[in-house]
Amino acid sequence: MIHPTAIVSDKAKLGKNISVGAYSIIYDNVELGDNIEIEAFCEIGYSTKLAENMPLSIESGALIRSHSILYQGSSFGENLTTGHRVTIREKTKAGKNIQIGTLSDIQGDCIFGDYVRLHSNVHIGKTTQVGNYVWIFPYVVVTNDPHPPSNQLSGVIIKDFSIVATSSVLLPGVTIGFDALVGAMSLVKKDVPDSVVVSGNPAEIVCSVEKIRNKFDRSKRVYPWRYYFERGMPWEGMGYENWLASLKKD
Amino acid sequence: MIHPTAIVSDKAKLGKNISVGAYSIIYDNVELGDNIEIEAFCEIGYSTKLAENMPLSIESGALIRSHSILYQGSSFGENLTTGHRVTIREKTKAGKNIQIGTLSDIQGDCIFGDYVRLHSNVHIGKTTQVGNYVWIFPYVVVTNDPHPPSNQLSGVIIKDFSIVATSSVLLPGVTIGFDALVGAMSLVKKDVPDSVVVSGNPAEIVCSVEKIRNKFDRSKRVYPWRYYFERGMPWEGMGYENWLASLKKD
Amino acid sequence: MIHPTAIVSDKAKLGKNISVGAYSIIYDNVELGDNIEIEAFCEIGYSTKLAENMPLSIESGALIRSHSILYQGSSFGENLTTGHRVTIREKTKAGKNIQIGTLSDIQGDCIFGDYVRLHSNVHIGKTTQVGNYVWIFPYVVVTNDPHPPSNQLSGVIIKDFSIVATSSVLLPGVTIGFDALVGAMSLVKKDVPDSVVVSGNPAEIVCSVEKIRNKFDRSKRVYPWRYYFERGMPWEGMGYENWLASLKKD
Repeated sequence: MIHPTAIVSDKAKLGKNISVGAYSIIYDNVELGDNIEIEAFCEIGYSTKLAENMPLSIESGALIRSHSILYQGSSFGENLTTGHRVTIREKTKAGKNIQIGTLSDIQGDCIFGDYVRLHSNVHIGKTTQVGNYVWIFPYVVVTNDPHPPSNQLSGVIIKDFSIVATSSVLLPGVTIGFDALVGAMSLVKKDVPDSVVVSGNPAEIVCSVEKIRNKFDRSKRVYPWRYYFERGMPWEGMGYENWLASLKKD
Repeated sequence: MIHPTAIVSDKAKLGKNISVGAYSIIYDNVELGDNIEIEAFCEIGYSTKLAENMPLSIESGALIRSHSILYQGSSFGENLTTGHRVTIREKTKAGKNIQIGTLSDIQGDCIFGDYVRLHSNVHIGKTTQVGNYVWIFPYVVVTNDPHPPSNQLSGVIIKDFSIVATSSVLLPGVTIGFDALVGAMSLVKKDVPDSVVVSGNPAEIVCSVEKIRNKFDRSKRVYPWRYYFERGMPWEGMGYENWLASLKKD
Repeated sequence: MIHPTAIVSDKAKLGKNISVGAYSIIYDNVELGDNIEIEAFCEIGYSTKLAENMPLSIESGALIRSHSILYQGSSFGENLTTGHRVTIREKTKAGKNIQIGTLSDIQGDCIFGDYVRLHSNVHIGKTTQVGNYVWIFPYVVVTNDPHPPSNQLSGVIIKDFSIVATSSVLLPGVTIGFDALVGAMSLVKKDVPDSVVVSGNPAEIVCSVEKIRNKFDRSKRVYPWRYYFERGMPWEGMGYENWLASLKKD
């Protein structure tokens, strides 16, 4: 299952049932769990002085699509899935069941919770903190430098269950609230409170997320999305409220 | 003309005069016409469960530049040209003479007419329908989910001869009219009528496209562009009106 | 230091101490200085009819990160550094000590001064002229066609010490002034004077750059940045004014 053209370091620690595609390279400082598929043309554990001797750790069940580059010094929980041509730099710490879309670029020193979804071509600046169950859509840029160029990083915080829609920019140091929705092509200059929709350049509060109705059936609400969307989430098949209740029983 | 380092499946069906560059991979479900050049580091017919047993079909005359990934289950008419690092997913159906620029990402289940031009780094969401002679410029994002995340796709329709300028976003379900022009960095939330210019965030109608004058000679019109631009178009060397007239004679 | 899987043309002219990573390709028309590192999966001197017989020239001290593509017919001064997946087309002429970030795409026929910094995913259209000590941040698009599609290129001019922040678009033919700052997500339709901040869609003048204060210490100015930032600049360790004075003494 290791393609004969793949280059795999003797020093890399590989679990069971690892697949490595044609022309992929596994460098020294790599620790892989079980049942992991790395496709063609990838670089896994890319070396950097910024994380010397720190391994890249990927827990079981990962799928790394082709042409992706993961630096040493980051760690991922179970069931990581990436698109193609993903770049993830050093010292990123990510939870389980996260998906990172094609062409996305994570600059390092970031934190991601569980079940985060980055769609294609998302740019996450250094020191960003992303919660659980967060969705970020294509061409969103999360920045960190309050007066570029400077040495003063001011990372963005994106809280649980929030959504950042296509082509928005989050300026340094803002916090995106729990359950909040940032509309497409918004320039977010100040904190977004919990459970509100913001949009525009610059972004302003539009309404509570509960005010938004289903495009095809105006009688139905669509936010907070956790009550209306289940695919790939731990509450798939039972609904968010039943899942929450089941957690409390345990 | 197949580079010795290329990996070409025995099951792939190749026409005459096929060139495959160094380190490229041609998978099983591939049907290539004649006179096709595939450069280095490409993946052609990338396998996906979403299009099992469906071939990737590319008609004669294609040029696929290096580092591109084309999934199985899509089809392209004659003379496809791609830039570098293009990603095209499953079940896309494209006409002839289309060009797809470097880093563009087509998410699948899309339809493209003939002579479409996507410049660099264009993102086309699933179920988008693009007509003939359409131009889409860098960093345009065509979306499809009316209230993300949801399961309700609402694809965009982009009609013949229209133009979408740099860094614009087309929101789910909008129609861009025949001959219309979407200005740079526009957020298109509602349908754009035929033959108008829209711009802004959110986009509003500015004027008829015929009102726009040549930057260097204010006495000349520049739109509808088909009357003023010929390079690579079937009316090259004779002009649009003569070409139309010649079609009617046949 | 040439990896055994690298493909290096006999016709390429290589200086001393050249490193070429796994699966990289060095084509014919290449002239490399000394102490250059080319990582894995690169294409150096990619062939194009638009620059036939013109070499790609890279002076000493370059670091080309993996998956990058540099066309023949361009030239770079000492100490070029690129990120991953960079694309640089033909007939670009660049000075020394420039950095070009991951996924950036330079379309060719451009001019860059010394110490230019392009962050990730910057798109530079043909015929752009960039001065010295210029910073351009992620997802900025520099355009050139005043009424697309046309054959009339109108390149942008970006003057010394200016800054273009994230996700901005520079429309064809504009000039960005010396020491100017273009705020994030700005649509620049007209010339930006020296030493001012512009922002918005469309961009308007906000204030002089000297009015901007440090986010964490409001008593401190941060622009013009050359007085407050040194990392990687020729005045590192002595400050801009002392460096200027030292130049005058010589």
